[in-house]
Amino acid sequence: MKERIIDFFLKDRFAVHAGIKLLEVEPGYALAEMEITDYHYNANDIVQGGAIFTLADLAFAAASNAGGQVTLALNANITYIKPGLGKKLRAEAREVAANKKTAVYNINVFDEDGEIIAQMSGTGYRKKEKIEF
Amino acid sequence: MKERIIDFFLKDRFAVHAGIKLLEVEPGYALAEMEITDYHYNANDIVQGGAIFTLADLAFAAASNAGGQVTLALNANITYIKPGLGKKLRAEAREVAANKKTAVYNINVFDEDGEIIAQMSGTGYRKKEKIEF
Amino acid sequence: MKERIIDFFLKDRFAVHAGIKLLEVEPGYALAEMEITDYHYNANDIVQGGAIFTLADLAFAAASNAGGQVTLALNANITYIKPGLGKKLRAEAREVAANKKTAVYNINVFDEDGEIIAQMSGTGYRKKEKIEF
Amino acid sequence: MKERIIDFFLKDRFAVHAGIKLLEVEPGYALAEMEITDYHYNANDIVQGGAIFTLADLAFAAASNAGGQVTLALNANITYIKPGLGKKLRAEAREVAANKKTAVYNINVFDEDGEIIAQMSGTGYRKKEKIEF
Repeated sequence: MKERIIDFFLKDRFAVHAGIKLLEVEPGYALAEMEITDYHYNANDIVQGGAIFTLADLAFAAASNAGGQVTLALNANITYIKPGLGKKLRAEAREVAANKKTAVYNINVFDEDGEIIAQMSGTGYRKKEKIEF
Repeated sequence: MKERIIDFFLKDRFAVHAGIKLLEVEPGYALAEMEITDYHYNANDIVQGGAIFTLADLAFAAASNAGGQVTLALNANITYIKPGLGKKLRAEAREVAANKKTAVYNINVFDEDGEIIAQMSGTGYRKKEKIEF
Repeated sequence: MKERIIDFFLKDRFAVHAGIKLLEVEPGYALAEMEITDYHYNANDIVQGGAIFTLADLAFAAASNAGGQVTLALNANITYIKPGLGKKLRAEAREVAANKKTAVYNINVFDEDGEIIAQMSGTGYRKKEKIEF
Repeated sequence: MKERIIDFFLKDRFAVHAGIKLLEVEPGYALAEMEITDYHYNANDIVQGGAIFTLADLAFAAASNAGGQVTLALNANITYIKPGLGKKLRAEAREVAANKKTAVYNINVFDEDGEIIAQMSGTGYRKKEKIEF
């Protein structure tokens, strides 16, 4: 099942375009990785905020949709803690709570040393529509 | 000056990679555009949240750095209002307030019909470092 | 009708306890006021963040419930711009967008000089339950 | 020292007015409690969002100021997970990261059964000014 969910998220073309890979996923949890290359930097030569957000957002999407119920982000709040250094960043999403209609997730972004560089809190709206993985 | 600031933000490689163009910029204001192509979609076939965020974030970065003082995002809160349809999305950033140390911006994202599809509120930290455009 | 909605919100005992009055309200819009007294201050002698939040939140609740559909806050993001000075603060809530299930509001908080001192972005979940004003 | 910090926060008159007590505090951590009484309810007869926010905010303020450096909230993002039931709510604030200028905190609000009912993420700006407890 994990492989089928990972395959499904290969259809997330923006995440793929941003070099993001889903490593682990199950209902309520996901781990994603982004290898940092030249195109991830901003004009001030640090990893661009949108790249970090996109990494966190993919983990959020994977974790919150993995149970098969389509969940769309309503709101996401990201706090940047320090610049991402090194060659890889990872985002880990965990469910805080969910009911039939809404789901709340925390997503932490870590550098290669396991230091937290950003955190996101996301609120999703759960649709009736199902995903067939 | 506007051209030099736009040139500077061509160094934002993630924004360029995401197909984002800065159309207008002056201290406290920016307008950016993203042409929607296949790679902007997510696995549910709507424009990916990270792509929309990145568009808004570039407008925020441009508007808040255009005065020449390096401003880094501390926090960004995005609310998704409806799916982005059509071929282009635009983000418009406006300064709400700024002092020596911090700056607050609102960024609205519009579709081709001028309908708002997302809004972001961003808080930036202003460093002493200057940008030479 | 406006009077009946204002009367309904007199049942918001925490808002009343915090000295907050609803001045104007209609579906999608509300204006609330808080007279600053000694009990509104924090340990650093500026108006407490929770007091400012409560003022903004009452305006959000009034504007988003005024149409008669129960709307509960899912998420609220507040940015503090400057300390509130003077004897009164006012919060003005405006609907950005709403559909059957969710509603997005912006709420600005102003001091007596009409200067913005805080802004809130709120996302609400709209229940089927109705309010009889 | 803990007692002196608790005494200092008794000067937070809005928190006192809202029936909030600081139970534990040290640099980077705080635990606060609010006994629910009639005046904590909103017009829909659930604990008012501003009351929950104020509880979380006091824990954030206590934890982030306990080291003696004045820290002011720039931004706070609260997500409501479920209605607060029972006679008491507690908020626990933990530092995620801090440098000379900014500090990031997570604050969880729990009901009497230890269930999370709301979570806040807060970003503070650290001033040069010191507090003498």
